[in-house]
Amino acid sequence: MQPNFNDTIIALATPAGVGAISVIRLSGKDAINIVSRFFKSVKNKNLKNQKTHTIHLGHIIDNETVLDEVLVSVFKNPYSYTGENVVEISCHGSSFIQQEIIQLFLKNGCRMADNGEFTMRAFLNGKIDLSQAEAVADVIASNSAASHQMAMQQMRGGITNELKELRGQLLDFAALIELELDFSGEDVEFADRTKFRELVAKIITVLKRLIDSFAFGNAMKNGIPVAIIGEPNVGKSTLLNALLNEEKAIVSHIAGTTRDAIEDEIIIEGVAFRFIDTAGIRETEDVVESIGIKKAYEKAANAQLIIYLFDASKVGSGKLEVGSGKLEVGSGKWEVGSWKLEVGSEIGIIKNRFSTKRLLIIANKIDTLSSEEKEALVNFEDNMILLSAKENIGIEELKSKLTSLVNIGALSNNETIVTNSRHFEALNNALTAISSVQQGIDLEISTDLFSIDIRECLRHLGNITGEYDVDKDILGHIFSNFCIGK
Amino acid sequence: MQPNFNDTIIALATPAGVGAISVIRLSGKDAINIVSRFFKSVKNKNLKNQKTHTIHLGHIIDNETVLDEVLVSVFKNPYSYTGENVVEISCHGSSFIQQEIIQLFLKNGCRMADNGEFTMRAFLNGKIDLSQAEAVADVIASNSAASHQMAMQQMRGGITNELKELRGQLLDFAALIELELDFSGEDVEFADRTKFRELVAKIITVLKRLIDSFAFGNAMKNGIPVAIIGEPNVGKSTLLNALLNEEKAIVSHIAGTTRDAIEDEIIIEGVAFRFIDTAGIRETEDVVESIGIKKAYEKAANAQLIIYLFDASKVGSGKLEVGSGKLEVGSGKWEVGSWKLEVGSEIGIIKNRFSTKRLLIIANKIDTLSSEEKEALVNFEDNMILLSAKENIGIEELKSKLTSLVNIGALSNNETIVTNSRHFEALNNALTAISSVQQGIDLEISTDLFSIDIRECLRHLGNITGEYDVDKDILGHIFSNFCIGK
Repeated sequence: MQPNFNDTIIALATPAGVGAISVIRLSGKDAINIVSRFFKSVKNKNLKNQKTHTIHLGHIIDNETVLDEVLVSVFKNPYSYTGENVVEISCHGSSFIQQEIIQLFLKNGCRMADNGEFTMRAFLNGKIDLSQAEAVADVIASNSAASHQMAMQQMRGGITNELKELRGQLLDFAALIELELDFSGEDVEFADRTKFRELVAKIITVLKRLIDSFAFGNAMKNGIPVAIIGEPNVGKSTLLNALLNEEKAIVSHIAGTTRDAIEDEIIIEGVAFRFIDTAGIRETEDVVESIGIKKAYEKAANAQLIIYLFDASKVGSGKLEVGSGKLEVGSGKWEVGSWKLEVGSEIGIIKNRFSTKRLLIIANKIDTLSSEEKEALVNFEDNMILLSAKENIGIEELKSKLTSLVNIGALSNNETIVTNSRHFEALNNALTAISSVQQGIDLEISTDLFSIDIRECLRHLGNITGEYDVDKDILGHIFSNFCIGK
Repeated sequence: MQPNFNDTIIALATPAGVGAISVIRLSGKDAINIVSRFFKSVKNKNLKNQKTHTIHLGHIIDNETVLDEVLVSVFKNPYSYTGENVVEISCHGSSFIQQEIIQLFLKNGCRMADNGEFTMRAFLNGKIDLSQAEAVADVIASNSAASHQMAMQQMRGGITNELKELRGQLLDFAALIELELDFSGEDVEFADRTKFRELVAKIITVLKRLIDSFAFGNAMKNGIPVAIIGEPNVGKSTLLNALLNEEKAIVSHIAGTTRDAIEDEIIIEGVAFRFIDTAGIRETEDVVESIGIKKAYEKAANAQLIIYLFDASKVGSGKLEVGSGKLEVGSGKWEVGSWKLEVGSEIGIIKNRFSTKRLLIIANKIDTLSSEEKEALVNFEDNMILLSAKENIGIEELKSKLTSLVNIGALSNNETIVTNSRHFEALNNALTAISSVQQGIDLEISTDLFSIDIRECLRHLGNITGEYDVDKDILGHIFSNFCIGK
């Protein structure tokens, strides 16, 4: 889709609604000219003669009616976001004024911008590549430090930087291979096969690393899924609130900040965790209950982390005789032979099902236990976390456990992490193609049989950064580097 | 309340929520210094050395983590909105980024701005007067061309310009009168009584005009109250929708513009009309219904305009025998001797109650009538508007009637219109005081008896523009103009 570069687009750039100010943005060849016709600077300056990146106080005047007192920012082609002439009008933040000003310019040579059209123009004008353009939306949508950092990394050219040089080198080889094909009768070999083999191996390594990063990147972007397994009333909500409240306190004194309405998504040390509710899991002969448990297992299996939460207070103060005598649980529901046996068997089931690397076992309501009982719990299971959500005991320990189970090293090392599923798909396609190339080289098959795979790989890599037209690319390379003169 | 001018305040200036960009504003002595510590310009420019009204691209970096790519606008004391150093950070429009950046600066020397504190600082730093500062809120809140225009007029100094010179002249006289009091033993008369009398008369004229403008200004600001009287099902909602839809079409293609949720407020040619529902009015002996009718009369009496709407289709096509024979109305409810008689008597009641200047009589559903019937209606009542809300017939005529009944001449003449009830009160108090002064001059009573009224008048006028400290003012005037040297 080619935009009409001759027209000038306009849109509200700030969120809709009432605030101190709103910003209306215009971009296009005539942006400055159009605004200058309706803008009267308090210093009688002509907007058209102003330098780029300057701000001017004045009034937007429509037919002698003053619409508003505004600040007008001028950005001149190519030193703007879109690479075109851009004007940003900072007006008073009312819907009425926004409408009036936008209407005025719509009547006088602007048209309403499509969604993302400023960024699309930035891409089509060569200010940013496609993956950077895509990252702009991710930056705006991100709601945790981790997802934000990954989006920022991409916006600043992360994946492009990884791929650009390799793709350029592959392009050089592709050009040589194409040349070989032109001289196919003469059995020449312009492309050094050893070096080519090395490059292909390197590309495969990089692609595999990027592809592997997607599972992590996607989870970080959308929130790490955490399944909570446990009976009702073991204190799940209280636990989530305890985790949530600490984070809430940080933002509560900023007027107007709004929390996204994702239920039970909690951001801990900058990483979003998405908590998934499940049915209680225990051994049962009840058919219906079994189905519920099966579903809980499925949810847990798909989750990245599993929390097994149980109510330690049910042990009943003073009645705990670990590993030996009878235990009468308060509610009467769990009237079991021995606490250790029963809870132990549950934990056993869970531990058989899921890797301990992904599992957190939590004893809640420990504020009701004696120190002997607590010690018994600790002895019983090494990695058990003892906490009281209600009394805010052990919450910090849980938080550090949760984050320790997520490898956030990749984030702090500033590694490129793929978060975009379009990129993921393109990387997989590129990997398939380049693997065929590798096979072709290894089997020493005829060049023309794998040259199509090279093109495929280039095309898929080019899709990521928006360098679509691979054939034209190859030709471009040939003409610029080789100039075969025929 | 004196703000601490040594601190630097920060706040989100644009509406909360998600958009392309958000603007965070800092104001205070250290605004530029604080931002410069965390802002890395892409051109390696030091923010502190930049000119006022310039824009700089770069990144907000907290401890090596890039929070966002931003545009930073620099406004230097006194050339800013507040008169202090101001920095506006234009970042990506997500709540997360807004929080991160605001948190960063809160931790590094800023404090959260109070509501309206930027404007308050603008006032306290002498950039605008109090009535202008008040108008800023009105400009943002206004949702019609009329209310917006009045607020803009005030923001640009409307009422100040009206009062400033007169107050200055009164201040001069007050100084002379005070001087007379100092020399009270000597029976001198520094203040020319004839000129003083002229000035007082002029002030009274201006104050009365401004006070009179308030009823209009207040109605225009809050919407002209229009009571609609009529039976249920005469087509009131359809009429309101017909009026509303036309206006809605104008704004509907601006993404994100939101209508205020004021029910039945309709803006016609830039003027807001606030429609008030009432019970049906007719002659009745039912006690309960009478109470309803009484309340309807009260509402109508308080409204600026009254619309009497009736359903002309109830006349029953073909059955209308104007002024003579029997009429069987479709619903059976209005089984009356003659249509003319009954509706006529209703209109008679209404016309007896309310001035015809404020009354619009509307026959709805005329699409069901024959041309003879329509003619009969027109002949029956001169100023009756015939319309069909459903078929959109006569809506334009109604709109021009409505606006013609509101004197919007004052708006187009750019007259000062008082819309602020604080100003209204101050003007009334000033008028009372200056009237006492006039009386005092007329009665030639002793100067010291009315000098207190002059002070009162000055104080009330000063309240409007925020020049509170009248005594200091008077002294200031004496010292600067007279320098009596003792």
